[in-house]
Amino acid sequence: MALKMSSEELMEFIGAEFPQVKEDFIIEGLADKRITVRMPVAERHLRPGGTVSGPSMFALADVSVYLVILAMIGPKALAVTTNCSLDFMRKPAAGVDLIAECRLLKLGRALAVGDVLIFSEGMDQPVARSTMTYSIPA
Amino acid sequence: MALKMSSEELMEFIGAEFPQVKEDFIIEGLADKRITVRMPVAERHLRPGGTVSGPSMFALADVSVYLVILAMIGPKALAVTTNCSLDFMRKPAAGVDLIAECRLLKLGRALAVGDVLIFSEGMDQPVARSTMTYSIPA
Amino acid sequence: MALKMSSEELMEFIGAEFPQVKEDFIIEGLADKRITVRMPVAERHLRPGGTVSGPSMFALADVSVYLVILAMIGPKALAVTTNCSLDFMRKPAAGVDLIAECRLLKLGRALAVGDVLIFSEGMDQPVARSTMTYSIPA
Amino acid sequence: MALKMSSEELMEFIGAEFPQVKEDFIIEGLADKRITVRMPVAERHLRPGGTVSGPSMFALADVSVYLVILAMIGPKALAVTTNCSLDFMRKPAAGVDLIAECRLLKLGRALAVGDVLIFSEGMDQPVARSTMTYSIPA
Repeated sequence: MALKMSSEELMEFIGAEFPQVKEDFIIEGLADKRITVRMPVAERHLRPGGTVSGPSMFALADVSVYLVILAMIGPKALAVTTNCSLDFMRKPAAGVDLIAECRLLKLGRALAVGDVLIFSEGMDQPVARSTMTYSIPA
Repeated sequence: MALKMSSEELMEFIGAEFPQVKEDFIIEGLADKRITVRMPVAERHLRPGGTVSGPSMFALADVSVYLVILAMIGPKALAVTTNCSLDFMRKPAAGVDLIAECRLLKLGRALAVGDVLIFSEGMDQPVARSTMTYSIPA
Repeated sequence: MALKMSSEELMEFIGAEFPQVKEDFIIEGLADKRITVRMPVAERHLRPGGTVSGPSMFALADVSVYLVILAMIGPKALAVTTNCSLDFMRKPAAGVDLIAECRLLKLGRALAVGDVLIFSEGMDQPVARSTMTYSIPA
Repeated sequence: MALKMSSEELMEFIGAEFPQVKEDFIIEGLADKRITVRMPVAERHLRPGGTVSGPSMFALADVSVYLVILAMIGPKALAVTTNCSLDFMRKPAAGVDLIAECRLLKLGRALAVGDVLIFSEGMDQPVARSTMTYSIPA
């Protein structure tokens, strides 16, 4: 399928609609039903001991699926997350960005399902795994 | 089972270990394997349109389960979330606090499982549902 | 909300549409958005050691949510499960029926979400917990 | 990591410990932290209309993760599923076997997490996705 939005258009859309989250995420790669998103880890994402907080990893997974859906269907701010599963498997490395590798497994008319692996940059094994279901307005 | 920590002791512990999250949560009720936690909704939790962000609801569910586990087993900062499921079912009301009603369904030696319903204050129907599994260090 | 189907009508519908599962389940209680379903545990549900198999518990949770949805909206065989989360928390007691206590947390036009606790009959603590999302055809 | 059990040893173990499930599954491929399992779809797995039942897909995902864990750690019948998430995304094709592609994402001392995509044989898009967490006895 052809992409309906480029990385630049996606970031512009996010900056306009969700200005408070824009600075947290950088699109590193975008292709048919696939996206790679970097979260530059900052002080506000951390827990004591230098580990990245759960809500920050949730946000990274959620935004990654949202962006790849928008890339496929065009700018629809009203797509909303209806379900999420998340497995936290390893402690993220301290002082290192997180990278989300996301695939869209289903893109239906009403529901979309995306799968995400989150890595500490430079590490082989994922720190977390997530699946997000989005409801797409008619 | 007797509680090993009171609401005051829990909030003191959170203030010392996780100062950045303390101001987001207020314990409204605490009993055997049950806790009620309020999230005073502030600007930083919102998305355009006045709805509360997904990461904020994740954080509320996660903290609620963490607090009720600590209340039962005493202060163990190292308990970590290993799994989460979340269903977002309704849009939270604008300008209204969120209330999490949490039950601990299992408290084993190694794993604990807590269930959470999140409500917009004053509404009958939950806005979200979550289950969190924590791994408890030996 | 008024129920659109009684326990008897539900079992008749299941017997006609899903004859192979009918004998596995008995409706013990039915009310607005609530249902209690018994699974008479038979040899075919067991694993070595007398424990009930995971697929059998999945089936019990899934059927319970399906039945309570049908009770609320009437006979629509085409409602399908889109998402499931399941926590297995304790070993079921040997030689004892399972009882599912199910609440419908959301009944929208397109999606319904039901929550289930599964007990070994006569025990206080649940053996499993599940949430099921159903997609309802227009 | 070296495999501790071959496909043949795994099937022999399953045949001895879980004779009632053995005939349902065939190992098609086995490698470091990866397994491919076929479920020859039979009448007993079907729902009206020819679709494969949810419990059958649950069983396929669950067995796949169990087998790849055993392949890595050796025969430990007591590993038990503690958590499962499942997304049903498409209707399985009628009269066609199901194929599970499974990766072990984490293999810790106490917990293992495996991810599964289920396909109708010969189709590109997965019919279902699942993650299973197993607790491994000490």
